[in-house]
Amino acid sequence: MTDVLNYKPVLALSGGVGGAKLALGLASVLMPEQLSVVANTGDDFEHLGLPISPDLDTLMYSLAGIANPAEGWGRVGESWQTMATLAELGGESWFRLGDLDLATHLYRAGGFAKGLSLSEVTQALCRRLGIGAEILPMSDDPVRTYVNTDRGALAFQHYFVRERCQPVVQSIEFRGQKLALANQRWLELLANPHLQAIVICPSNPFVSIDPMLGLPAVYDALRASPAPVIAVSPIVAGASIKGPSAKMMAEMQMPVSAAQVAHYYESRYPGLIDGFVVDISDGNEARHIDTAVLVTATVMKTLDDKKALASAVLEFAERLAAKSRQTLAAKAAGTSP
Amino acid sequence: MTDVLNYKPVLALSGGVGGAKLALGLASVLMPEQLSVVANTGDDFEHLGLPISPDLDTLMYSLAGIANPAEGWGRVGESWQTMATLAELGGESWFRLGDLDLATHLYRAGGFAKGLSLSEVTQALCRRLGIGAEILPMSDDPVRTYVNTDRGALAFQHYFVRERCQPVVQSIEFRGQKLALANQRWLELLANPHLQAIVICPSNPFVSIDPMLGLPAVYDALRASPAPVIAVSPIVAGASIKGPSAKMMAEMQMPVSAAQVAHYYESRYPGLIDGFVVDISDGNEARHIDTAVLVTATVMKTLDDKKALASAVLEFAERLAAKSRQTLAAKAAGTSP
Repeated sequence: MTDVLNYKPVLALSGGVGGAKLALGLASVLMPEQLSVVANTGDDFEHLGLPISPDLDTLMYSLAGIANPAEGWGRVGESWQTMATLAELGGESWFRLGDLDLATHLYRAGGFAKGLSLSEVTQALCRRLGIGAEILPMSDDPVRTYVNTDRGALAFQHYFVRERCQPVVQSIEFRGQKLALANQRWLELLANPHLQAIVICPSNPFVSIDPMLGLPAVYDALRASPAPVIAVSPIVAGASIKGPSAKMMAEMQMPVSAAQVAHYYESRYPGLIDGFVVDISDGNEARHIDTAVLVTATVMKTLDDKKALASAVLEFAERLAAKSRQTLAAKAAGTSP
Repeated sequence: MTDVLNYKPVLALSGGVGGAKLALGLASVLMPEQLSVVANTGDDFEHLGLPISPDLDTLMYSLAGIANPAEGWGRVGESWQTMATLAELGGESWFRLGDLDLATHLYRAGGFAKGLSLSEVTQALCRRLGIGAEILPMSDDPVRTYVNTDRGALAFQHYFVRERCQPVVQSIEFRGQKLALANQRWLELLANPHLQAIVICPSNPFVSIDPMLGLPAVYDALRASPAPVIAVSPIVAGASIKGPSAKMMAEMQMPVSAAQVAHYYESRYPGLIDGFVVDISDGNEARHIDTAVLVTATVMKTLDDKKALASAVLEFAERLAAKSRQTLAAKAAGTSP
């Protein structure tokens, strides 16, 4: 990579834990200021009076270096005084809000009470947490993911946390999505001709990525960007590293494979993905995928793993961009490559 | 006192710390189930997304035996993880919400989100906290005390906590009071012919008692009750035991004395108070007070102090009730006593 390349902006789309790992890798191999991460807010909900944004918080804590390393979500060194007391009072304690984490939600509630937007509150929190990268909620308007299951429609956190993903998924809907405005800063970045790469992190396609890609104007803006769009498979060796991706695929009658994730993106967002990244354990799936494929180690346990994958993804993006430039140049010269 | 008397209900009206002390005394000398305490909710506010009811909480914690003995408000054994973290984030930390206390506010917010009323949430909390007495918010409708000061109109907690009562008080208003319905259970108790006594606790007349007494229908219902109304002075030896009563009186051009509290109640609520209780240090004020006066020790430091004052107040009420019965009997017999 050239020096110039190193200062071009990179955009990542991320859900929670899995996506945040790659976001941290990207923030570590880039200048932090180069990276903008758009976070899914379809998982957001109002709970016990407080606005909770799980994916934003996981990203913030990860990039600030204060995430709980055991869970991937929540804060390191967390305590549980309030939750324990709430349980004693007979209150709802299925969504575990740590004492340190609660401060984030109170801060956000206080910001909303003053009329600040989710973007503004997030920006203030990131500044205070010393995060160099930019974290953008996908929208300042409410979008709420509901999972239609054999036990009825469940708000996402009720499905995910309270019911521990046990109900069988039939379909997923994003209430408010078609009325929501995508974050303007995100659309501005997509219009930036210097954008180096757009990375779809290894997040759940159905409940982390779809809420973002289905926002009005987003698909067209992504297609219009000259930056290559690289998606990293959240399915490795036929299973999810984290979360219910694999279970959802099986319940929605899809083969549980990395290739199927690529097919899903291609069928839902034709022509969007320029390159697809699968784990080395899924090397034989490449031939079932129509886009360019990078086979590399995608399981991120250590910071080095995260940085290695981030670098591999960015190099892959640069190769695809170079090829695209060659194709365009050849077309302009009236020859075919 | 007779056994029968011991089982007759007693009603107390209370603000925060000072009132809660006498309420605890009353709960300790009565069968707990005999006591109903109506709490001021004019101090309530929405803060950082949470509904806070300071007087209700002080009463609950006091009667549950979990109040912080040093402060009188908040919970014993409190920790401050969330507040410390919120301060690190640059959030509003002027209203100190302890980790244990926060559970109460989250519980209340969760109840409101399910459509429960403040009364219902309070009842559930009291049950869970093992409180035998009944604690009733004065209304389920929002009444919000504003203090008009030399620095403008301040919501009560902003005046009281954030500004530490420093602005000079010009007047006080209770927004929403005339549209609020008094707690129906309170009005039912006032209509109970067996009611033993109505005790106005030594709370701030201007910001704890006035919000309650000025609710529609309350003055008439209090007047109609045959039970004697006993008010305990919050002013002792020309000063407040706790809170800004004395400072407010001075700023509103009133002499700062126990007698003036009696005059204030009499001018604002004519004929309401049947007996007034002043501290032994204010014995010489009795002659300036038109109602019956009990001079007794009103400063409550220990539980024994609280029980002694409670017993003295109840005995005073019984003497006044007996005298009233004699007067009525004499009138019925066509003689004057």
